[in-house]
Amino acid sequence: MSSPESPSPPQLKAIRGSFLDFIADPFYQPEADSVRYLPDGLMVLEAGYIKALGPFSELQAEYGALPITHYPGQLILPGFIDTHIHYPQTGMIAAYGEQLLEWLDQYTFPTEAKFKDKAYARQVADVFLDELLRNGTTTALVLAAVFPESVDAFFEAAEQRHLCMIAGKVMMDRHAPEMVCDTAASAYEDSKALIQKWHNKGRLRYAVTPRFAITSTDEQLQLAGQLLQEFPDVYLHTHLSENVDEVAWVKQLFPHCQGYLDAYDQAGLVRERSVFAHGVQLTDAEFQRLSEAKATISFCPTSNLFLGSGLFKLDQAKSTEYPVKVSLGTDVGAGTSFSMLQTANEAYKVTQLRHQKLSPFKALFLATLGGARALCLEEILGNFETGKAADFIVLDPRATPLMAFRNEATAPSSLAELADRTFALIMMGDDRAVAATYILGELAYERTAAGTFSR
Amino acid sequence: MSSPESPSPPQLKAIRGSFLDFIADPFYQPEADSVRYLPDGLMVLEAGYIKALGPFSELQAEYGALPITHYPGQLILPGFIDTHIHYPQTGMIAAYGEQLLEWLDQYTFPTEAKFKDKAYARQVADVFLDELLRNGTTTALVLAAVFPESVDAFFEAAEQRHLCMIAGKVMMDRHAPEMVCDTAASAYEDSKALIQKWHNKGRLRYAVTPRFAITSTDEQLQLAGQLLQEFPDVYLHTHLSENVDEVAWVKQLFPHCQGYLDAYDQAGLVRERSVFAHGVQLTDAEFQRLSEAKATISFCPTSNLFLGSGLFKLDQAKSTEYPVKVSLGTDVGAGTSFSMLQTANEAYKVTQLRHQKLSPFKALFLATLGGARALCLEEILGNFETGKAADFIVLDPRATPLMAFRNEATAPSSLAELADRTFALIMMGDDRAVAATYILGELAYERTAAGTFSR
Repeated sequence: MSSPESPSPPQLKAIRGSFLDFIADPFYQPEADSVRYLPDGLMVLEAGYIKALGPFSELQAEYGALPITHYPGQLILPGFIDTHIHYPQTGMIAAYGEQLLEWLDQYTFPTEAKFKDKAYARQVADVFLDELLRNGTTTALVLAAVFPESVDAFFEAAEQRHLCMIAGKVMMDRHAPEMVCDTAASAYEDSKALIQKWHNKGRLRYAVTPRFAITSTDEQLQLAGQLLQEFPDVYLHTHLSENVDEVAWVKQLFPHCQGYLDAYDQAGLVRERSVFAHGVQLTDAEFQRLSEAKATISFCPTSNLFLGSGLFKLDQAKSTEYPVKVSLGTDVGAGTSFSMLQTANEAYKVTQLRHQKLSPFKALFLATLGGARALCLEEILGNFETGKAADFIVLDPRATPLMAFRNEATAPSSLAELADRTFALIMMGDDRAVAATYILGELAYERTAAGTFSR
Repeated sequence: MSSPESPSPPQLKAIRGSFLDFIADPFYQPEADSVRYLPDGLMVLEAGYIKALGPFSELQAEYGALPITHYPGQLILPGFIDTHIHYPQTGMIAAYGEQLLEWLDQYTFPTEAKFKDKAYARQVADVFLDELLRNGTTTALVLAAVFPESVDAFFEAAEQRHLCMIAGKVMMDRHAPEMVCDTAASAYEDSKALIQKWHNKGRLRYAVTPRFAITSTDEQLQLAGQLLQEFPDVYLHTHLSENVDEVAWVKQLFPHCQGYLDAYDQAGLVRERSVFAHGVQLTDAEFQRLSEAKATISFCPTSNLFLGSGLFKLDQAKSTEYPVKVSLGTDVGAGTSFSMLQTANEAYKVTQLRHQKLSPFKALFLATLGGARALCLEEILGNFETGKAADFIVLDPRATPLMAFRNEATAPSSLAELADRTFALIMMGDDRAVAATYILGELAYERTAAGTFSR
């Protein structure tokens, strides 16, 4: 494999197969105008970036002599983008019996305390990133722990894999055990140093990450806002209005604010490049404010069901009157799967319980281009536009015996057939449905009997 | 492998490992008194049945010389019991976008029409039963299609695998396309002939199976009741109060009845050995009536979420005042997985959304002994009591890389550790977590890279 400094040799190569990506938002445009589908396409790669994409028959003359990797019967998509996940919680996934606030006290804080040890943090970061690749997730917005060491470990592991990753140190100065608390001042200083060290280093980006309003004093939130002033292109990543008890507590803690979102807003944290996980309990006025601010909600269905938080109002977020940017998050470890397919599966179920329909194309949009837009990365990834990074995945619609029985071996020939195939992938697929994951045009993961990683 | 007539040679053999089964209902008894756990146990098998079970250290002297298969680090449970599943819908799992009534019209009826062709039906029955075994389900209550041929095909396939299976011909004489309708009289005659042919033939049992009150005339329901009078030990299997629109329609169709359940009750269909799938919309009076009648509700969470039917009130069903027998069903093809582990995963989420807790032991009880009790089979299977059928499964708590990271390799040494291990299996497990499935003491399925079947 190549070294971190030169992830991809400059010569041309190509991938042939069925390509599916999005060129518009299917929540607001007809699906036929939003989906781009090439049943037999060729994608030409140059030094890790997309040089050309078109029907094989049209590009064959010019590029037919290149080395071509062919994936017949598979579906090639842009890599999935997970916009809310906690890497220190990898090993505490599936912790029993509590809703949000008790779950944090009982399981999360003791687990995250271990991440002061950088060597341990690196070990978990490696497992975590391999699991993302195994599930076809190529970019994620990630919470580390409160310790700067945990951020260093994560970014080093991400850099080694040439991944476009956004992460930040959790800021938390109250209502948590002392062992996982910082102070308003130390959080500011530590975050600033981490931004200077990691933000825009290669494909890495930094997110200022107050855990949530309950565990940050107003002073800490204000200093988070000051960081956003000093570094306008860093992200803001936090939790918002997940659980009824949480919302009630925030109201007590911030009596001068009009509500949960306003606690962040008064600190200057609500703007574009701000990603708020959950939003299950948002009011109409809060949806409207998020729309105006161009902020993003990361919808985390497996987590919302696992913690019993409730049913996110996706239809309201994606309204025409006050459209809010929405993306999908697994929220591992409260989420129950690293798979964005399984996450879309449960997103569908949440919408069904609310008597809405989430089409497979809408779900896959949220998991790809929608995620890129949420993270203001659509200029460099999220679909197969020329010049974008060649972070893509190969999905196998016949990955299990049942899927092979359900799905034909031939490529879908119409949008309706493609919708059925992708819906089956969402409902039945998991990490096994990811046959390969490419990062900057290089094979980073290939499914085998045991699953193997190359780096 | 042995022939169908002699599924197991009479000599003794033994299985060593960690055994988990239930000896009481943990909804009504303390969990410590309901769960039986042997961290290092030995189960002695004779001609397909359990001859002895105890700590290896105690049984070693007497049985140590037998051929012993050892499963260190795994968990051995009674086979799962799926109390509601449609075998003709195997290939239409994950059909997009509709709630119950539209989903039936658009997808189900056209699919089931193909099952008049017995050869086709047999092909699907084989895939279906292999999928059950791959997922560790050893007994199921199964709907065939309206055609007697579909029942014959199913029972022949089940008999070949020596499985304890209950199934029946769907009765349906209105509100469905003619191609999948019978008449009241033909349904009665065909069902009667099938009962005489298959009921109590070896391990097979018959269930009188009116699809639901909407697609059966009152006359057909009355004739179903007559069959139960003529054959008191056959089962009754149907759907009940799944969806709001369905309940409203039933009220229109049966104006003389007090509600949905009463439409069945007036035909004599509500008694022990009656299994009603769903019950999401049941009234208090209906829960009370089901309790009095000792009838069973099959709770099908993945289906209830997939079709947006609603959240089953498990706490009300398992109340102390009016306890109702409850078991779990996948309800494939509206259910989204054959895995009873995944089904328990979503059962947990349904209870969390209702601010209840479904402990892993309660969930596994529902999937094993609870299912056996629901089907009045607890005398012959459902746990590891001496004399019961040796239908059991070997679960691998480290089946995937993430599960291996989450779970220790050693056997749990306390009930608390066991609860954590089993909860992780429920939340993270699927067919990959089933390392082996035994039927009457013989290995019927063993997980390999591809999955192989012996018969």
